[in-house]
Amino acid sequence: MTAKIRRARPDTLTDMPITIPVILSGGSGTRLWPLSRRVAPKQLQLLVGEMTMLDATLARVAALGERIMVISSGRQDTAIPEHVGPQPVTLVVEPVPRNTAPAVAAAALLAESDDVLVVLPADHHLTDEASFVRTAEEAVTIARGGRLVTFGIIPTGPETGYGYILPKDRGSSPIDKFVEKPDVATAAALIEAGAVWNSGMFVFPVGLVLSELDQHRPGLVDAVRRAIRSATIDEGRVMLGPEFGDAPAVSIDVAVMEQTKQGVVVPLAAGWSDVGSWSALWELGERDADGNVIRGDVIAVDSNGSYLRSEGPLVAVVGVDDLVVVATADAVLVTRRDRAQDVKKLTEQLRDRPES
Amino acid sequence: MTAKIRRARPDTLTDMPITIPVILSGGSGTRLWPLSRRVAPKQLQLLVGEMTMLDATLARVAALGERIMVISSGRQDTAIPEHVGPQPVTLVVEPVPRNTAPAVAAAALLAESDDVLVVLPADHHLTDEASFVRTAEEAVTIARGGRLVTFGIIPTGPETGYGYILPKDRGSSPIDKFVEKPDVATAAALIEAGAVWNSGMFVFPVGLVLSELDQHRPGLVDAVRRAIRSATIDEGRVMLGPEFGDAPAVSIDVAVMEQTKQGVVVPLAAGWSDVGSWSALWELGERDADGNVIRGDVIAVDSNGSYLRSEGPLVAVVGVDDLVVVATADAVLVTRRDRAQDVKKLTEQLRDRPES
Repeated sequence: MTAKIRRARPDTLTDMPITIPVILSGGSGTRLWPLSRRVAPKQLQLLVGEMTMLDATLARVAALGERIMVISSGRQDTAIPEHVGPQPVTLVVEPVPRNTAPAVAAAALLAESDDVLVVLPADHHLTDEASFVRTAEEAVTIARGGRLVTFGIIPTGPETGYGYILPKDRGSSPIDKFVEKPDVATAAALIEAGAVWNSGMFVFPVGLVLSELDQHRPGLVDAVRRAIRSATIDEGRVMLGPEFGDAPAVSIDVAVMEQTKQGVVVPLAAGWSDVGSWSALWELGERDADGNVIRGDVIAVDSNGSYLRSEGPLVAVVGVDDLVVVATADAVLVTRRDRAQDVKKLTEQLRDRPES
Repeated sequence: MTAKIRRARPDTLTDMPITIPVILSGGSGTRLWPLSRRVAPKQLQLLVGEMTMLDATLARVAALGERIMVISSGRQDTAIPEHVGPQPVTLVVEPVPRNTAPAVAAAALLAESDDVLVVLPADHHLTDEASFVRTAEEAVTIARGGRLVTFGIIPTGPETGYGYILPKDRGSSPIDKFVEKPDVATAAALIEAGAVWNSGMFVFPVGLVLSELDQHRPGLVDAVRRAIRSATIDEGRVMLGPEFGDAPAVSIDVAVMEQTKQGVVVPLAAGWSDVGSWSALWELGERDADGNVIRGDVIAVDSNGSYLRSEGPLVAVVGVDDLVVVATADAVLVTRRDRAQDVKKLTEQLRDRPES
């Protein structure tokens, strides 16, 4: 069979090329343990404000496209709405996680070759949604001209945890090179030279991204095509077949963006955060007079600059500075704000535990 | 009625003066929140080793006396055994807490005037029980000579949280003066001059301690005597009457020891700790190669010098030093080891919560 979501329902039948937001919701956000877990990843949690990041991302793209695709694991089924306003949402379920390149291939194969995909992770936060929509519309126009667009975030400092993209020119520009997680000095030099952060957000013409995937990762698209042929389709949910597991687990950055000659980076100034660690949530949160971000049943005595959160038990801190304390019903994390990235180390140790 | 525990049971009838260990178990140990609470104070918790401090204190005094008294609140009823080995334990229940002087008065009034009381808090830890018994036997001999004996702990440093006792001479000696919670410089000077820590452990001849109480706190003994007259006595349990509340809440140190001319301090070298805070438990505990004391379901990554304890939830720490983290099913404490005394501040804030 050939599943094509543009024509999936008679009432939305159209032969015009459309823009399809594709939300990648397969991640598990291990650096936000113990709140974010495999069974309840960070995009489904109330982390910033009163909306999950998945819902915020769905709302963000409502203005951009006629249909929305969410690519995810089966575990999140119940969290994915069937509509966002009037727009139907197609859930594409991966039988196994395979990073972003196979997910993009699946979305592209489910669209028509003249459609455009706006690919966004489900677990990023933006403070300026209107600015994002304006920039995304510009990116769609560039993509329709036969380019693979990535959004570049204006750096706020020489962070070492991100990938950097050096454009050839200022503004929207072809890409000179990618630099993954540089040291501080290299990061500072890159910023000086006009580099931006790799956001993991893209706009792709369907035909072009498929041909570039075929060229740079032969076999990947074929494996995903077989998984779509054997997919189970039910009420706008596409369960990909087991052949999806034959595709290599590789990011779209590595598989295509770092290889292609058609790449363009579009700078994005929209208050972006990948909410990659508890320290990011401290930065995004509302700080009290002591510089603490507090959520839930927490008492802070003589304590400053800390992210303090409870999902149940009373959390009391006395005389501590710059910590992260997060308590759920069955687990407690205590770390320093400047060590919050290392929570990943911990979750690697925890992998063998049930429900970690 | 006149209740006298020496003659309470026919099988132990004797006219010989006896030594009666009196264990004061009325405290609530608020600096060990969230483990120690009003309903489950620290002497009833497994804090050091595999025995509660109450049980360890009962075992400690088994060699010293023919009968044992425990003075406590009604809440601890079920934790108090009826015997320690062959020795009967009399539980004296205070209707309201009134600090140590009324408790000592109650014990004295329940004994005969020629008995000797060995008064010990239920929540202290000793590492050298044999040394304690030798010193206590010496103290009993001194007390029988008509002295009010207090045990003085050889200081390990100029701690500011303790009371100091300056003896007139080296060794067992009359008392020159008491200094309560001096600053560091004063503490150092006191230690240089031979001062010891006030342990809160005493040996008192019954007749003498009652007459000194009468002299320095007129009315206190009378109130307690009325409470004993109206007491309910049941199977070796003495529920003091409500008149106990008429006695002033005052410590035996302030009421008698700081006033009397009959005071003697006996130095005690038995590895004493009042287990007064979580930092004391870190010092008493078995430290691993990273200097952490770990108890319960705890994972420590890149962390050092910390007391990490769980009574239920998984506790994970990443990149922290010199902290105290204690988690129970319903509460989590995070503090610095050198701020552990300030947990008291917290429990004052928590006083209005149920079950705090």
